[in-house]
Parts: sequence; structure tokens; C-alpha cells
Amino acid sequence: MKEINIGLLGFGIVGTGVAKLLIDNREVIRSRLGADLNLKYVADIDTETDRGISLDDGVLIPDAHKVIDDPDIDIVVEMIGGQGIAKDLILKAIQNGKQVVTANKALLASQGNEIFRAAAEKGTDLAFEASTGGCMPIIKTLREALVGNHIASMIGILNGTCNYILSKITDEGMTFETALAEAQANGFAEADPTLDVEGFDTAHKLAILNTLAYGMEINLKDIYIEGISRIKPMDIEFAGQFGYKIKLLAIGKDRGDMVEARVHPTMIPSENILSNVNANLNAVAIFGDAVGDMLLSGYGAGRMPTASAVISDLTDIARNLLTGRAGRVPLLGCQPGNIRKIPVMPVDDISTHYYFRFSAADRPGVLSKISGILGENEISLKSVHQKGRKTSGAVPIVMLTHIAREADVKKALDEIERLEVVSDKPVLIRIEDENQED
Amino acid sequence: MKEINIGLLGFGIVGTGVAKLLIDNREVIRSRLGADLNLKYVADIDTETDRGISLDDGVLIPDAHKVIDDPDIDIVVEMIGGQGIAKDLILKAIQNGKQVVTANKALLASQGNEIFRAAAEKGTDLAFEASTGGCMPIIKTLREALVGNHIASMIGILNGTCNYILSKITDEGMTFETALAEAQANGFAEADPTLDVEGFDTAHKLAILNTLAYGMEINLKDIYIEGISRIKPMDIEFAGQFGYKIKLLAIGKDRGDMVEARVHPTMIPSENILSNVNANLNAVAIFGDAVGDMLLSGYGAGRMPTASAVISDLTDIARNLLTGRAGRVPLLGCQPGNIRKIPVMPVDDISTHYYFRFSAADRPGVLSKISGILGENEISLKSVHQKGRKTSGAVPIVMLTHIAREADVKKALDEIERLEVVSDKPVLIRIEDENQED
Repeated sequence: MKEINIGLLGFGIVGTGVAKLLIDNREVIRSRLGADLNLKYVADIDTETDRGISLDDGVLIPDAHKVIDDPDIDIVVEMIGGQGIAKDLILKAIQNGKQVVTANKALLASQGNEIFRAAAEKGTDLAFEASTGGCMPIIKTLREALVGNHIASMIGILNGTCNYILSKITDEGMTFETALAEAQANGFAEADPTLDVEGFDTAHKLAILNTLAYGMEINLKDIYIEGISRIKPMDIEFAGQFGYKIKLLAIGKDRGDMVEARVHPTMIPSENILSNVNANLNAVAIFGDAVGDMLLSGYGAGRMPTASAVISDLTDIARNLLTGRAGRVPLLGCQPGNIRKIPVMPVDDISTHYYFRFSAADRPGVLSKISGILGENEISLKSVHQKGRKTSGAVPIVMLTHIAREADVKKALDEIERLEVVSDKPVLIRIEDENQED
Repeated sequence: MKEINIGLLGFGIVGTGVAKLLIDNREVIRSRLGADLNLKYVADIDTETDRGISLDDGVLIPDAHKVIDDPDIDIVVEMIGGQGIAKDLILKAIQNGKQVVTANKALLASQGNEIFRAAAEKGTDLAFEASTGGCMPIIKTLREALVGNHIASMIGILNGTCNYILSKITDEGMTFETALAEAQANGFAEADPTLDVEGFDTAHKLAILNTLAYGMEINLKDIYIEGISRIKPMDIEFAGQFGYKIKLLAIGKDRGDMVEARVHPTMIPSENILSNVNANLNAVAIFGDAVGDMLLSGYGAGRMPTASAVISDLTDIARNLLTGRAGRVPLLGCQPGNIRKIPVMPVDDISTHYYFRFSAADRPGVLSKISGILGENEISLKSVHQKGRKTSGAVPIVMLTHIAREADVKKALDEIERLEVVSDKPVLIRIEDENQED
């Protein structure tokens, strides 16, 4: 039986999962691939810690360069993470003519244009299914299954930590801080949770998905990013009263010669299937001109789900090596010559529905002042709710709008914040509700 | 730019969709594939009817054999349907060395072993993404993305007509007959709905999915099939009271040296994401040993969603022709030599939770008689509900069981049906509830 030699860089949580799956499920992989995926090397500076996996003598080594320089290695799997040594090793592996698999979304979102260009020039495959959506085959779906579609929009729950925290706040009335502490205690959140809860990790993944869907160069820096740390249980409760749930969404939309790219807490109808994606699950809803609505859901992180996506990439590349050549599917979905710099629409120019919450003095005339300012800024209200509960002397006033322009909303909210009768900063949460046309 | 020549057989609803997508989305397909999918011929006995698509002169012809015999045709797309001429043409196209794409689930489920064997012997690709789950990439996911997993189970909503009818009964309290009539009026059900509502179409698709997931020969004849025509609004209402919804499910489970394969109306928890797959959407929930729970959802039928899946197959094959060779991914997921005859577990041997409804005389002692018979047959009850509403003098008695064996259930229900105090045939609905362990 033919062998494809794998060199794994990084023996941490996901690296260990990949090694485990290659060993435990060797038979079933072989029965499908018709060849062996042979784990020749695992490189990690820590060669001592017991990971609960028995590797043959000589497989675990401290030197990653020995792996990428070995002429027998067919595919290098980068599971180190970060943007320093991981990038160097990937680029050197490409120069050595190795095929590469990585799950490193931060690196690809930040420096992917350079890396993919190097791979395309060298003619090697660079696969990254595990970078986005964990085990969900979202990369494969966009690159291969939806090839006949113009993608109109993608809406994704792409960070399990945030979804876990929001589910806890929603279902158990926890505060953000308590839910985060619980997520950390259960291993669903890092000690420093910034990358997750402030939306950066979600933005990394959106940058990758937008590139695949719209044929654009990877653009992380123009994505609008807002995390979940300022979400209050009160807003989640009000959302529920209007038939909405709050999720941290990655939103990518085709806007003709621009693309919308934004990450923020969003209200979506409770009956929307994304509302039912709870705990640490991920999901992406895609709207294509031929398929209509489609949805993928699964675990977006974790040792074995991520390892499953890596094995999918490994077998894809192995099949190219066994029956054809690299570059069978262009790395970023479009043929390299067709990838364009498509600008991201400035968030000020987007138009959507909004939820506002103001803390206002419970006095006659306040409502008319606020709604007057909104009206002057072309913001038309769908409903106004003065909530009974007093918080520090002020009353929450909640408003839902018809479609409004973000720039107008910001201007109006700045003015309203300066009103003497309004305490605290106004709360703004965007709404995605396809059932409402205006 | 390179051209791949396509010959389309059948210019009905889906065939028209394929032609339309190849023409309308030609640019986007070309930008991804790096080659043109050129529709050289469309063969249909009806060359007169206006389908609203303008084909170049000489493309639409009446003779399918001219297409499969043309040496310039690379890929033949069979969109005729049925098991007569469609099979002949596919087999002849394979003999002529053509690659083949089909959406013909009835043919593949019934005679697929012969057809796939012919393709494997000739070394041609035979792709069938559109046969199951419409636009959802369920075939690609099983054959390629989940290659590193043992699939433990698959649970699918695979027939849009049934799901539409059940959604109408559930949400609007319609009877089966009214909901079916409405589905027919809206074009979601055929004039003769037997294939859909009696579960046969779902079984065709399950036969295909089980083959891919478990590496077994296609086996349609041993699938247990029960349709939705006997579902009463009363049972849907009771299901709701217990926190369940009723869906027509295709269930495939790995049972060691056997596979469960059954299609029947099933109660599932309302919070299960499958419960929220409504109207004419399809979905498949997959449980794999590495990925855990995963779900795909999308339109399982319709002109353009089905055409999208066909384009996915066409580009996959085109890529093989452009950079490698056919057979890159084995047709049925496993290497041909590894596909085994795995027996389907007889339905009498399955064990699951059950819902029973009896119409019984409202008399002392009836309940103890019924529950006595159940107990004698090793069926342990979780709850018993005597419902107030009298139907034709009898009272509905509803019971939910712990895990019980189907053979015991049938024996007990036969005995109960013969009781003088029980009118009508007892109603049995199986329950899939992963939260209940016994």
C-alpha cells in the first residue's frame, strides 16, 4: 500500500488530536483513501510531557527544521499557532516543495496574501479547513460545493467561547463576567479571553470566508469589529420580548463593487435556525443565488473536531499526490488571476435595523426629544417601549427602527447622549431580520 | 481558455435549471474553475416547448444517443429520471468512457451496485451530489470531509414534501389531507404523492447515505419504511405537550456488524435543531467519533438548488480532467475492494423509546389491563396520560416508554388491540431523544 508521509509541527492540544486520529482511525482512513497517512515526524520543543499517545521511537523530535527539510515528507501540518515561527516554517516548507496544512486563522487572516502567493508560485497545496468553523466543511463548501453560485451573504457564529457565554447569559440570566468565569473554569475560554470575546477571532475567520466567497484579497484590517463584553442581561431580556436572540455574528455581504464585513453582537429572530445554535457550537448560514438558504453547523473548536478537519485536508492533498497534481482546486477558491482587491464597505455606510436603549429621566417630553432627534436624522421608528423598571433613577427607553443608515444613527446617538435628561451611553444593537423589508 | 464539453440528457425542470445556471453563472464558474463548462448538447424528445432559456442553434436535439456517442462530449448529465432509459443511457455513456453526473436517487438506490461497478471497471467518474439532500453537500461531506471519522449515526429530514406537510399540520392544525392538497396546489407535491408521503423517496436517499457512511453495498430492500399518511393532528398536539415535534426521519446507525436503516415518523425534542428545520427544507445531523455532532441544512429539491449540486459535481469532474484523472475520490467513499455486504438490522431488533396512543373505553381497570400486557412484554413505562377528550365514546390513553425492543412492542400492541375495551388500532410513534439514556 502506498504511503504519504506526514510531518506534524506542534504537539499541543490540536496537534495531539491530529496524531491521535491518524493512529486510532488509521484503518478507516486507509479504507477510504487507498493509501496510508504515515506520521513520520512530530516536532515540538517539549518532547517530554506525556500526551497519552504512544508514538514509535524517533517520531517525536525537537527540531521542526528536520521535518520540513526531510525529502521524504510529503505534507507538513503546522499546528504551532501564532504569527512568528509558524509563518517562517510554512514559508520554508513551501520553498522546499512541501504541501502544507494549517489551522492558523490569525496568521492567514493577517498575512495570508503573502503566504498564499508563495504557495501558488511554488505550485504547492496549502489547505486550511480547520482554520474556520472547526469540523464544519465550510471551506470545502465554499471552494467546491457552491462553485456555481454567486454568494449574496454569509452570516456566521464562528466563536464557541462567545456563543457559550451568550447562551449562558440568555438561558441562565448570568452576567457577562460570571458567564466568562464559568467558561474559563470549563476550559471553553482562555485565561486572556480578549481575542475571543472582543470579536478578533471571529474577524479572522470572516476575513478568510469573505475571500473564498467573493474572490477578494484577504482583508482583515477593514473589518468592523465589536465584541460581546458590553452586552447586558437587560438587553438580552428585552430582545427576548421582541422575539429576538443576541448572537455574536460574522456578517459578509456582497454589495456589488464592495463587500460588507462586520463582526458584532446582533439580534436575530428566535425562530431563525441560527438562534438555536447554542453552547459552543458554530454555524454559518449562506445565501447563494442558486441554492437559496443553506446552513452548516458543528463544533468550531476542540481537539478532535479540529483534527477531523485536518484529516480532511490531508486526504484531499494525498489524493492529489496519488492521482494528479497540486493546485487542483485554487487555494482561495478563485483562480489566482481572478482574485481582486474588493473594498470593504465602511460601517458608516451600512443600512440595517437597530435596537436602541436609552437611560432617560422619567419626565414628560423626554420621549419627544429623543424621537425628534432620530427623526431629524432620517431614522424612522418601528416601535417605542418605555420599560417600567427604574435603574438608578432613570428609566430604560427601548426603540426598534426601520432600516436606517449607520452614519445617521451614530450622529443621532451622539446628540441624544448629550441631552441632559439622558444618563449613560445609549446602547445600540444591530438587527438581522430578513422578514422585515424596511 | 480550456473547455469541458457537457451533454445534458433531459430538459425538464432540473435539466432546465442546470442549463440556466451554466449560462447565467458562466463567468463566476469560469473564474473559479479556470475553464469553461460548455453546454454542447441538450437532448430531449420535446424540442419545441419554450423553457425560457435561449440555447444556441443545434444545441437542443431529440436524440440522446447522439450525445453519448459524440467523442467531444466529456461529461454526460442524466436528468431524465426513472429507471428505464436513464439506466441504459448511463451504462452506455460509461462504456463510451464518458464521465457521468446524475441526480437519479431511485435508480441509484435500486440498481446502483450494478451501475457503480460498471463505472469503477471502466475507470470513469460517476457523481451524484444532487441525488440526496438537493443543494446540501452531504455526499461531498461524507466522501471527503468526514474521511477521518467513524460515523456512528445519521438522522435526516430528506423529503421536502413530507416536511412541508408535517409543518403545516403542526403549525396550522391542518389534517394530513388538507396539508397534502395545499402542498399539491403550491407545487411542493406531485399529483401522485405516494413516492414522497409513503417514505420511499426518503428511503432511496438513506440507502445512498448509508453506503457512503458505512462502506456497505447499496441496500434499499431491507430498509424499514413507514410514511406520514397516518399521522393525526392529535398525535402532533400530544407530542408538543411532551416537548416533541414529529418529523419524517431517515435513520442510519452503526451497530457493529449491522447497520440500522429505517424511515418513519419520529418524535424529536423541540429544542433539537432538526425540530427547527421547517417547510420544505432538508437537513442531516451526523454524529462522527471525531467531529461529534454536525448538521447540514438546505433546500432538498427545486430547480436551482438541485442545479447547484450538479454544477458542483461538474466542476469536481472537470478538475479531475484538467489536473489529474478520474477516480480521485472513490465513487462510494470507500475503495471499491473495501465495500462490504453489511446486513441491515431487522426492525424487530431495534430498541428505542416509544409513544403509544390507545382509544380505550373510559372504564375502571382498562389502564391496568393495558399496562399489564406491556409489563409482561418487558416494556417499561415512563409516563401515562389519560386525555380528557372523548373521541367516538373512547378516551385517548397516551404512554411514553423507556427503551424497549420493537419485537416486544409489536407483540404487546397486537395483544392490546384484541382487548374488547380497546377500539381502533393502537398508534405507535418512535422517539429519538438522545437526552434520555434508558
